[in-house]
Amino acid sequence: MLRSIITGTGCYIPPVIKKNADFFTGSFYGGNNQPLTLPSEEVVKKFEQITGIEERRYAPDNLNTSDIAAISAQLAIDDSGIDAETIDQIIVAHNYGDVMKGSTQSDTVPSVASRVKHLLGIRNPACVPYDLLFGCPGWVQGLIQADAFCKAGMAKTCLVIGAETLSRVVDEYDRDGMIFSDGAGASIVEYKEMGDKPGGILSASTRSDCVNEVAYINFGESYHAGSNSDTRYIKMKGRKVYEYAVRYVPEAMKGCLDKSGVPIEALKKIFIHQANEKMDEAMVTAFYNLYGIQQAPEHIMPMSIHWLGNSSVATIPTLYDLVCKEQVTDQRLHPGDVILFASVGAGMNINAICYQCV
Amino acid sequence: MLRSIITGTGCYIPPVIKKNADFFTGSFYGGNNQPLTLPSEEVVKKFEQITGIEERRYAPDNLNTSDIAAISAQLAIDDSGIDAETIDQIIVAHNYGDVMKGSTQSDTVPSVASRVKHLLGIRNPACVPYDLLFGCPGWVQGLIQADAFCKAGMAKTCLVIGAETLSRVVDEYDRDGMIFSDGAGASIVEYKEMGDKPGGILSASTRSDCVNEVAYINFGESYHAGSNSDTRYIKMKGRKVYEYAVRYVPEAMKGCLDKSGVPIEALKKIFIHQANEKMDEAMVTAFYNLYGIQQAPEHIMPMSIHWLGNSSVATIPTLYDLVCKEQVTDQRLHPGDVILFASVGAGMNINAICYQCV
Repeated sequence: MLRSIITGTGCYIPPVIKKNADFFTGSFYGGNNQPLTLPSEEVVKKFEQITGIEERRYAPDNLNTSDIAAISAQLAIDDSGIDAETIDQIIVAHNYGDVMKGSTQSDTVPSVASRVKHLLGIRNPACVPYDLLFGCPGWVQGLIQADAFCKAGMAKTCLVIGAETLSRVVDEYDRDGMIFSDGAGASIVEYKEMGDKPGGILSASTRSDCVNEVAYINFGESYHAGSNSDTRYIKMKGRKVYEYAVRYVPEAMKGCLDKSGVPIEALKKIFIHQANEKMDEAMVTAFYNLYGIQQAPEHIMPMSIHWLGNSSVATIPTLYDLVCKEQVTDQRLHPGDVILFASVGAGMNINAICYQCV
Repeated sequence: MLRSIITGTGCYIPPVIKKNADFFTGSFYGGNNQPLTLPSEEVVKKFEQITGIEERRYAPDNLNTSDIAAISAQLAIDDSGIDAETIDQIIVAHNYGDVMKGSTQSDTVPSVASRVKHLLGIRNPACVPYDLLFGCPGWVQGLIQADAFCKAGMAKTCLVIGAETLSRVVDEYDRDGMIFSDGAGASIVEYKEMGDKPGGILSASTRSDCVNEVAYINFGESYHAGSNSDTRYIKMKGRKVYEYAVRYVPEAMKGCLDKSGVPIEALKKIFIHQANEKMDEAMVTAFYNLYGIQQAPEHIMPMSIHWLGNSSVATIPTLYDLVCKEQVTDQRLHPGDVILFASVGAGMNINAICYQCV
């Protein structure tokens, strides 16, 4: 049987470390434009307790989203051993395009994917580069689209990248800004004849709710009334996002796993969007509860949020690459392991993929 | 046989008319930041001779790309007669997201497609909205992706939209700015059992060149040195684009038509990206020349550029809708007619679809 297999991975971990203590001197305001009553140091410590984020990474000033996307892509290409000229589709998931350091403008023409193809030096005119905007679940959705192109006979080899420089769209007066970070992760997906062997993408599911949820994560003015009202930043209704995610992500994960036919006991890992440690734990516990299991198994959920923050589309491919390369303590993958990718973000969008390692 | 059929179309023609004479009082500069030597009125008249553009349409100040996308989408839904809740994928091709009048920022979170789903009031959580960035050929590529999702068993009904407000990213000191306009066009694509009947998407092809061509259309500073150097605008290397398009688009069109098996004599219409009248004529002539035919047949190429300008991703779906609704003089489509969609734009990207009307 033909299956979409991830044959190579790569990621870019930005070198600039921003620690929580670096925010102690910040001034935080609420959505009502009033200063928070707690001292900033207390705000930051509470933030750390809830989100699990201790530090995060920012891209150096001279690199844009397309640059770090291309670095992660080259590593994935090298890891898979393919000739880059055989890639049929370059799918780049992001949210804001290239935002040059110091600029408030998103640069999306040409697409980030065209820039990546340029940076990789790929000449093959049949290699189609495009950008996919789907909020944080963009990379997972890119994998779903790659699988569809393979099944439709339109592609045999796809490069799927998630890359983002959220540090350039955060409001320094908004404590939620501390969540966000920069990063890039990439995978090579090949459509391969597996014969009787198991492996590859087994099933997928996507959910989208836009009637009441469309503005849970959006672009809005600074919380500091004295800021330039013409400049907008990434904004989040944290409680709404939390409630939405904990309610619907577990359902979507269950729908996906059940579609694959794999029993819950056989599931080895869950690679979940790194948004908030408490939220991720709540989603995974709720997922197991749907199967009548009270507690999620130990080590089921590799985490990177402590040191990488939330780099949107980049979190899952980065974490998956780190685990594949045995760079996460107590986390290993073996051939035959069944895993779930699951994400949630702006839209609101949710998706999940059940994947069997080869 | 199952085929992807366009079962409904709609478009939004913005009400604000900007005539060429409105630019007579403008100040035009070149890429070297020097004022053009010709008086502006002469610049505008030469511009009209080359591009064929006499006037163009701008969206009203209170409407954004997502708003006009949703208007065109509702018309397409009504035209097809489907229940909007049955749509599996909402694919919105654009380049700059929502750019509020007076703002220099692109707003792409949540995605334009999520906003469209919100505006249409679609509740079905299985309806997946995403944005596709692929330069001007984005709408045609969206149709190709919709066809792939249908073939892969991932969708039966797709809404494919091209929407753009380029008037909000033009440099008023750059004569190329007169080319660009606003608009939105939409189609419903359904995967239908056609039995022995012909019809639907017969073939497609895509080409992308990024090694030397990536910056032919991009985001750059104003030609007026006194302008804010932090603000960038859509920029075009006109001659490079022209030469590239005339060289490669005809090849891509021939590759697509030949793949369909339809002989050139049976081709009834070519819906080509409305970028420049002279360039469009040159591309279509070169296409016929590839078949040893000296001149393209009369009325083969419906045109809207005279009064609509270049609205990027919106041009082809708008023009197709106008011809379907018999609103273009001497242009009619009949069941069984074989037509080509073809586009070229930033990336550089080229694509074509051979489609048989039902």
